[in-house]
Amino acid sequence: MAKQLSGAGLRGQVAGKTALSTVGKSGSGLTYRGYDVKDLAQNCQFEEVAYLILKGKLPNQSELDAYKAKLRGMRGLPSALKEVLERIPKNAHPMDVLRTGCSMLGNLEMETSFDQQQDVTDRMLACFPSIICYWYRFSHDGVRVDVETDDDSIGGHFLHMLHGEKPRELHEQVMHVSLILYAEHEFNASTFTARVCASTLSDMHSCVTGAIGSLRGPLHGGANEAAMEMIEGFTSPDDAEEKMMGMLERKEKIMGFGHAIYSDSDPRNEIIKQWSEKLAADVGDDVLYPVSVRCEEVMWREKKLFCNADFFHASAYNFMGIPTPLFTPIFVMSRLTGWAAHVMEQRADNRIIRPSAEYTGEELRPVPAISERA
Amino acid sequence: MAKQLSGAGLRGQVAGKTALSTVGKSGSGLTYRGYDVKDLAQNCQFEEVAYLILKGKLPNQSELDAYKAKLRGMRGLPSALKEVLERIPKNAHPMDVLRTGCSMLGNLEMETSFDQQQDVTDRMLACFPSIICYWYRFSHDGVRVDVETDDDSIGGHFLHMLHGEKPRELHEQVMHVSLILYAEHEFNASTFTARVCASTLSDMHSCVTGAIGSLRGPLHGGANEAAMEMIEGFTSPDDAEEKMMGMLERKEKIMGFGHAIYSDSDPRNEIIKQWSEKLAADVGDDVLYPVSVRCEEVMWREKKLFCNADFFHASAYNFMGIPTPLFTPIFVMSRLTGWAAHVMEQRADNRIIRPSAEYTGEELRPVPAISERA
Repeated sequence: MAKQLSGAGLRGQVAGKTALSTVGKSGSGLTYRGYDVKDLAQNCQFEEVAYLILKGKLPNQSELDAYKAKLRGMRGLPSALKEVLERIPKNAHPMDVLRTGCSMLGNLEMETSFDQQQDVTDRMLACFPSIICYWYRFSHDGVRVDVETDDDSIGGHFLHMLHGEKPRELHEQVMHVSLILYAEHEFNASTFTARVCASTLSDMHSCVTGAIGSLRGPLHGGANEAAMEMIEGFTSPDDAEEKMMGMLERKEKIMGFGHAIYSDSDPRNEIIKQWSEKLAADVGDDVLYPVSVRCEEVMWREKKLFCNADFFHASAYNFMGIPTPLFTPIFVMSRLTGWAAHVMEQRADNRIIRPSAEYTGEELRPVPAISERA
Repeated sequence: MAKQLSGAGLRGQVAGKTALSTVGKSGSGLTYRGYDVKDLAQNCQFEEVAYLILKGKLPNQSELDAYKAKLRGMRGLPSALKEVLERIPKNAHPMDVLRTGCSMLGNLEMETSFDQQQDVTDRMLACFPSIICYWYRFSHDGVRVDVETDDDSIGGHFLHMLHGEKPRELHEQVMHVSLILYAEHEFNASTFTARVCASTLSDMHSCVTGAIGSLRGPLHGGANEAAMEMIEGFTSPDDAEEKMMGMLERKEKIMGFGHAIYSDSDPRNEIIKQWSEKLAADVGDDVLYPVSVRCEEVMWREKKLFCNADFFHASAYNFMGIPTPLFTPIFVMSRLTGWAAHVMEQRADNRIIRPSAEYTGEELRPVPAISERA
C-alpha cells in the first residue's frame, strides 16, 4: 500500500537530497554550498556564484576570468532562433518567449550526452539575456539588437541590450546582487519541476524549459511584477498606507510579503532593500522608495508579514529603467544556475520521480453502449 | 522538521488525489474514471475516451459527433507556427519539435483564463498531429503538407498527413486503440511534471510543454522506439532468441519489458498484441511479429519479465508505416488528455507543490577573498 502523506503539496516532505543550498535552517537563513547569501552578495560577482553553484567551488581569479571570457563568447544567437523570436508577438508573455527560446535552442544545439551538461548550461546562462532582449527590442522597438556585446557581466550584457548603451557601474553592481539573491532556493516548484524532468534522464533544455513554465505561475515567479504594479499606484507614503489598509480590509492578496518556508524574515530582503535605497538616492526618487518602506511597515504592523526577496526588487528594477514585464525573466537568468545544478545532482544519483495518488474516483463499471448513454 | 521519506523517487508515496485513473489496483488493471481500459479499447473511439477523461463522462452520440466536429475544425496551424517549424532542422529530436511547437502555440493563443482550459486542450488535441507532421514532412520531404484534412479521427488525421493519403480503416482503428491505451496513467513522471507546473497556477501550455520534456526522457517515453530498434535487428525468431540471450548475459538493458507499478502483467499488452498480429497478417509479415512473440517468450522464461504497453506497439506502428522517431510523439498526442485532465484536477483543489530536501552539503563557512582561493 502507498504511504499516505499528511500535507497537500508535499509540504515539509523530503523528496530527495541536495548539497546545493539550505533555506531557513536555523542560524544561517539562506546558504549556497555552505556560504551565506549575504556574504556572497557582499563579496562576489554573480559569475562567481554561478561557478560555485554549478561547479562546487568558488573560483580563484584565473578561473573566474576564464569563466567570464567563456560566457562572453557564448552570447550570440543562431539565426533560426532569431527568426523564431521575430515571430512572437509583442503582447506575448515574456516567460512564454523565454520558454520557447530555450526549447528552440534545444533543437539547434541539442544536448546529446550528459558530458555536455556544463557547456550547455553555460551557453544558456550566456544567451538567455540575448533571447529576452532580442525579442523585446524587436517586438517593441523594431530593432534587431546586437546581442554580442563585450560587457563584463551577464547583468551588464542584459542592461546594455535593453537600453542600447553601456550600463553604469552602479547598475551593473545591483544586477550582480540581484542575480546572486535569486540564484538558488532548494526544492521550490520550478526547481522540483526540473528535477522530475531530469529523473526521466531527459535533456537539459527540457528540464529548463519545464522549469520556466513553472516559474511563470503567479504563485511562484512574478511576485515582484505584482508588487511593482501595486506600488506604482501609490502617490505617497500616506496614500500607500490608506490604500493598503483598504486592501487588507477587503482581504485582497498583497504580493511580495511572507514566504512558504521563512517564518520571520527573508534574508534576501535587507540586502536588496539597501540597494533600492541607494538607487533611489541616485535617481533622486522621493516616492517609490518611501512608499515601499511604508508598505513594509504597514504589513508588519497589521499582519506581522515581512517583505520577501521580491518586494524591494520591484523598486530597484524600476530605478534602473527595467520594464516590469521583464522582472520575471531576470529571475530566470539567475535561477537557471540552481535549476541546472539540481539537474546535474539528480542525474548523478537518479531514480525516476514517480509518486502515487490517492484514488477518489468511480468504482469499476462497464462501458455502456453509446445509444444507452445519458 | 521535515518528514523523511523512505524511498527514492517518491516511490509509493501519495503526492495528491485523483479521480482519473487507477493503475494496478487489484482486479482492475488500468481504469479510466472507473472503466477498464480493455473495455474502452474494445468499444470506443479515442475521441470518446478523451471526452471521458477531460469532461468526466462518456459522450452520447450527439455529444461525440459535436466533439469530433469541434476537433476537426481546430486542425489548422497559424502561419507563425508553421514558420517556426520550418526552422527546425531535420535531425532535431521529434519530441523537441513538439515541445517547441506547443510552447510557440502558447505565445500565439495564450490561455488567459482558466475558463479556457477545455478549449485550449481541445485545440492541442486537434493540432498536435498537425505540428508533428508539418515539421516531419517539411524537413524530410520538403513538402508543406495540408494540415486541415477532413478525416474523421485524430489518428486518421495523423496517418493521412504522414502518408499523404486517406488511411485504411484497419489502420484508423488501430490508432484508436493505441491512443486509448496511452491516454492516461496516474502520477507517472510526465503527468506529475504537469501537476507541479499547474500547482503554481501557470498556464496550460506551460504544463504540457513541461510534460513533453519529461516524456522525452529514455526512462519514460521512448521505450517503444528502443524496442523497435532492437527487433528490427533480428532476422528470425531463432536469431532473436540467440541475440537476446547474449544481451541478457551481458546484462544489457532490454526495453519494452516490466513496469514500475504493474507486477505480473501490463493490461495494455494483450490488446495491442492482438492488433499487431492482425496487422502482421494484413501486410503478410513473417518476421517482425514472430520475432516479437519469441522475445516475449524468452524474457518471461529467463527473467519472468512481461511485455509492457510499448513492446508490441513497436511492430504495430511499423506495420502501419510509421517511422520509428514518431512513436513517442504519438504517445504525446494521446497522453495529452491525461496531462490536461490532471492539470484541471490540480487547479480545482490546489496547493503549490513544494517539497523539502535532505541537506547533504557543506556546513556554514565564510567566503574567502578571491586571492586566497585554491
